[in-house]
Amino acid sequence: MRQATTILTFATPGRGFTEITGEVARWVAGTGIREGLASLLCRHTSASLLIQENAAREVRVDLARWLDRLAPEDDRYAHADEGPDDMPAHLRATLTGVTLAIPVIGGRLALGTWQGLYLAEHRHAPHRREIAVHLLGE
Amino acid sequence: MRQATTILTFATPGRGFTEITGEVARWVAGTGIREGLASLLCRHTSASLLIQENAAREVRVDLARWLDRLAPEDDRYAHADEGPDDMPAHLRATLTGVTLAIPVIGGRLALGTWQGLYLAEHRHAPHRREIAVHLLGE
Amino acid sequence: MRQATTILTFATPGRGFTEITGEVARWVAGTGIREGLASLLCRHTSASLLIQENAAREVRVDLARWLDRLAPEDDRYAHADEGPDDMPAHLRATLTGVTLAIPVIGGRLALGTWQGLYLAEHRHAPHRREIAVHLLGE
Repeated sequence: MRQATTILTFATPGRGFTEITGEVARWVAGTGIREGLASLLCRHTSASLLIQENAAREVRVDLARWLDRLAPEDDRYAHADEGPDDMPAHLRATLTGVTLAIPVIGGRLALGTWQGLYLAEHRHAPHRREIAVHLLGE
Repeated sequence: MRQATTILTFATPGRGFTEITGEVARWVAGTGIREGLASLLCRHTSASLLIQENAAREVRVDLARWLDRLAPEDDRYAHADEGPDDMPAHLRATLTGVTLAIPVIGGRLALGTWQGLYLAEHRHAPHRREIAVHLLGE
Repeated sequence: MRQATTILTFATPGRGFTEITGEVARWVAGTGIREGLASLLCRHTSASLLIQENAAREVRVDLARWLDRLAPEDDRYAHADEGPDDMPAHLRATLTGVTLAIPVIGGRLALGTWQGLYLAEHRHAPHRREIAVHLLGE
């Protein structure tokens, strides 16, 4: 049994969902570990991680609209230092979460057929985001 | 230190919460691992995993009603290929999450007295759902 | 590769967020493990764990208000055995989640600069809360 860690960096184009399944899977494959556990942490408080449907683009459109409704920009927030998209970004990151633990079976992330791994950017501006990854197995 | 993986399959009766604590605990016990970490991934985008109160049935009634309110069926969704319960199911799965990592201490999942492990089905129709499980320890 | 487990106990002053980054980091450091994975489970159904901004206090004020709005006390709940803050506490714990998995890199939790680890108490009264922690690595 052994382990590996890395920090993967992604450039987001501003608010929206960036699929990172391929990059994470490639790094896992490169370690040679074929059975184990991959754990991810988004190292930010206004971006987050989620596993969602990777086929229909409309799912991500509806998801974005839903987050807009649950944590709206036009609310009165005590914290608005960085603009009106700052606090809603923290709330949306809380709702979706920043850590994931994914079993690796037969050399692959054990995701379902329709599941993709997404980095959710909750700020309007493009950002450089870091994901810490830990892999354990053999 | 060693590891084990499996795919557990559950038949859900349609929308609602199926307690899976027993099945997961039995599989953990069967591996002989008494101290470690159990990680679970629900391999679907319209079902999810959660840890909630296992005593009062009313908690799950209120939880279902709350999810209905936060991600209602009668909203206008761009994605409705599979019917009006499709997109709300994706949203509810996002809100509750699809991965869990649970320490195993003294041969048992280290859940609190009132905590149960639930598979949440968010579609109206019965489904066959897969949970990938990874266990590490000794 | 080796592992360690513990139960950390925290006294909460009632509803709000208690930062636990320091206590968890100290326990991790004490094990001598410098690269690995730390997994946490809040063993309660009306308290939860979250990673959020550790600088501006206003973020936690807004977060508390947002949780109040999404899972209000003055709703009609079927489950109200322990008072009006009981069921909303379960809902808020579901929304924020009770497990976290955090990579440890270079002897430190791989959290971002602005990320803190918080125990969220969702009941009005002070409580004693247990967090089960598993650490794996070398």
